[in-house]
Amino acid sequence: MKTTAAIAWEANKPLTLHEVDLQGPKDNEVLIELKATGICHTDYYTWSGADPEGLFPAILGHEGAGIVLEVGKNVKSLKPGDHVIPLYTPECRECNFCLHPKTNLCQAIRTTQGQGVMPDGTSRFSLDGEPILHYMGTSTFARHTVLPEIAVAKIREDAPFDKVCYIGCGVTTGVGAVVYSAQMEAGATVAVFGLGGIGLNVIQGAKLIGARRIIGVDVDPSRAEWGRRFGMTDFVNPNDVDNVVDHIVQMTDGGVDYSFECIGNVEVMRQALECAHKGWGRSIVIGVAGAGQEISTRPFQLVTGRKWEGSAFGGARGRTDVPTIVDWYMEGKIDIDSLITHKLKHEEINKGFELLKDPSCIRSVIEY
Amino acid sequence: MKTTAAIAWEANKPLTLHEVDLQGPKDNEVLIELKATGICHTDYYTWSGADPEGLFPAILGHEGAGIVLEVGKNVKSLKPGDHVIPLYTPECRECNFCLHPKTNLCQAIRTTQGQGVMPDGTSRFSLDGEPILHYMGTSTFARHTVLPEIAVAKIREDAPFDKVCYIGCGVTTGVGAVVYSAQMEAGATVAVFGLGGIGLNVIQGAKLIGARRIIGVDVDPSRAEWGRRFGMTDFVNPNDVDNVVDHIVQMTDGGVDYSFECIGNVEVMRQALECAHKGWGRSIVIGVAGAGQEISTRPFQLVTGRKWEGSAFGGARGRTDVPTIVDWYMEGKIDIDSLITHKLKHEEINKGFELLKDPSCIRSVIEY
Repeated sequence: MKTTAAIAWEANKPLTLHEVDLQGPKDNEVLIELKATGICHTDYYTWSGADPEGLFPAILGHEGAGIVLEVGKNVKSLKPGDHVIPLYTPECRECNFCLHPKTNLCQAIRTTQGQGVMPDGTSRFSLDGEPILHYMGTSTFARHTVLPEIAVAKIREDAPFDKVCYIGCGVTTGVGAVVYSAQMEAGATVAVFGLGGIGLNVIQGAKLIGARRIIGVDVDPSRAEWGRRFGMTDFVNPNDVDNVVDHIVQMTDGGVDYSFECIGNVEVMRQALECAHKGWGRSIVIGVAGAGQEISTRPFQLVTGRKWEGSAFGGARGRTDVPTIVDWYMEGKIDIDSLITHKLKHEEINKGFELLKDPSCIRSVIEY
Repeated sequence: MKTTAAIAWEANKPLTLHEVDLQGPKDNEVLIELKATGICHTDYYTWSGADPEGLFPAILGHEGAGIVLEVGKNVKSLKPGDHVIPLYTPECRECNFCLHPKTNLCQAIRTTQGQGVMPDGTSRFSLDGEPILHYMGTSTFARHTVLPEIAVAKIREDAPFDKVCYIGCGVTTGVGAVVYSAQMEAGATVAVFGLGGIGLNVIQGAKLIGARRIIGVDVDPSRAEWGRRFGMTDFVNPNDVDNVVDHIVQMTDGGVDYSFECIGNVEVMRQALECAHKGWGRSIVIGVAGAGQEISTRPFQLVTGRKWEGSAFGGARGRTDVPTIVDWYMEGKIDIDSLITHKLKHEEINKGFELLKDPSCIRSVIEY
């Protein structure tokens, strides 16, 4: 079939829309009509050329929602008409990662996904007979895409696509880091470093599970209001205090129970660890640092009981947990509407990358 | 009263035995007659001058066992005749650390203990009217010592002092790191870096809980036999392989479930983390690094599911858990006898420091 897709031809060059050829789903695959997609820093990271594993030409995008149009042979869990969210972290329920109780990092299709192709080693997208690569296994910057069944979460039909697409990455990454990775308990004290989309979702995750105190940390004072709207109880601007670690330790009589780094800055990752409470504080890295950068600290921080951890896709098992997060949104337990500050048309996609640098933008969404 | 004690007058100068004055126990304190003490690297670390918080003149020693001779006012849990192990990590059961379910780092007397004095701010030891400092709150290099009630574990009376004194530090640090800090599950795969006394105790802790595979790592080939005796299943000499991390990852099809650093080398701490399995591997730092040294890694190691943690006194709550470990020894579940390679007299105490550098020595014990 033919569909319209934004192609990234090479690093840092504007995406261009094309009518591309899309092969139908093979065995264990499904064809999806996308209804909406978010534009995320990770798309930008690859597009900018900073991602050492970035491949071109490719159809970017990984934060979508849509409807199943057609299913290939052997597909059992999905049928045409199902409302779905594509998963860049699949859930095969068979690999040794899926069968381990402590991780969500399904490895079933990792190699081919990293190479920009489907599990059989080929792309479903082409233009004038030349293959165009998939991206993160999802390619939601196309109006239609093909995915393995294991990389598709089925969701309720009353959920609005232009909102729940954000659950395909940002919401789950933030809320999930609290609920699934940290498995935080009610009454906890929390520090959240970086109040962008991920940080705000961490805040609302912490509120959801009943955190007692939620300290937001950002150098941009305008983020304080954003944080408060989502449940932040205290705001710290590192530029206004001598030492942000000492300040938080003093505010909390010894440090926080949990801290989250939502920026990708290795110095901030250290601060997040060191403001965690002696004896039991856990610090969770969510942000993605630049290639080759390293974190460091004195091992005494660990020997005296702090734990340094990380979270990817919020520790969520996509097919199992994404539908639950959609329910939380539909039940009013989490707010997505306020976070979607900009709506764009497909042809405005390059504007979406520019908006990532605009402090007034938390998330822009393209509605197809 | 008068007692005999080895005094460290200044860094790196031989200890000398003296008849010192020992004040009796004040409120909430007990007087203990020591029957045996181990000589540990931590004593050496302070004695050598490398410990930036070391104070002199002091009576070192923190790995003892003995009998209660006298109790001060308000002491409820101990009486004369009780067999006991002094605790450098006390357990008050009242501070916010003791009341937290995830730490053993009781802070009740931390400040005064670090200053070499009892909780009332004074020393019980003196020579010719001049105070001599306590060390780690225990000072087991004296034949008698005074301790706060909260820093004394009561143990069974049939346990031999010259063996169970080792539970006062090394055994608990190693076995406890597995059982209490990691709370490792049966069937786990483990790597232990450094097969000194702590590493061997980690190995027997891992065996105790039913680890499936226990990989010992040491540059000294003679440690392989030691490791096997305690339950090690595989030995890796980093000098015999290109890259110890890659080697262990390949041996284990992806990495170990748990790794333990038992040396205090920050480069080895990084190796221990990086040979932990993606998704769920946990690495526990036990070794104490030199002052000011730092650990580092790429944060990607954490984001992809490894956890970096630490353990002090094996995560054991001394008054609660030390008696249990004594039971394990008496029931034959752990071996202490083989680890005590040297027995010394009090007047040979300086030889104990020399023996720490002797590869044939795992632990030397002074019997009073």
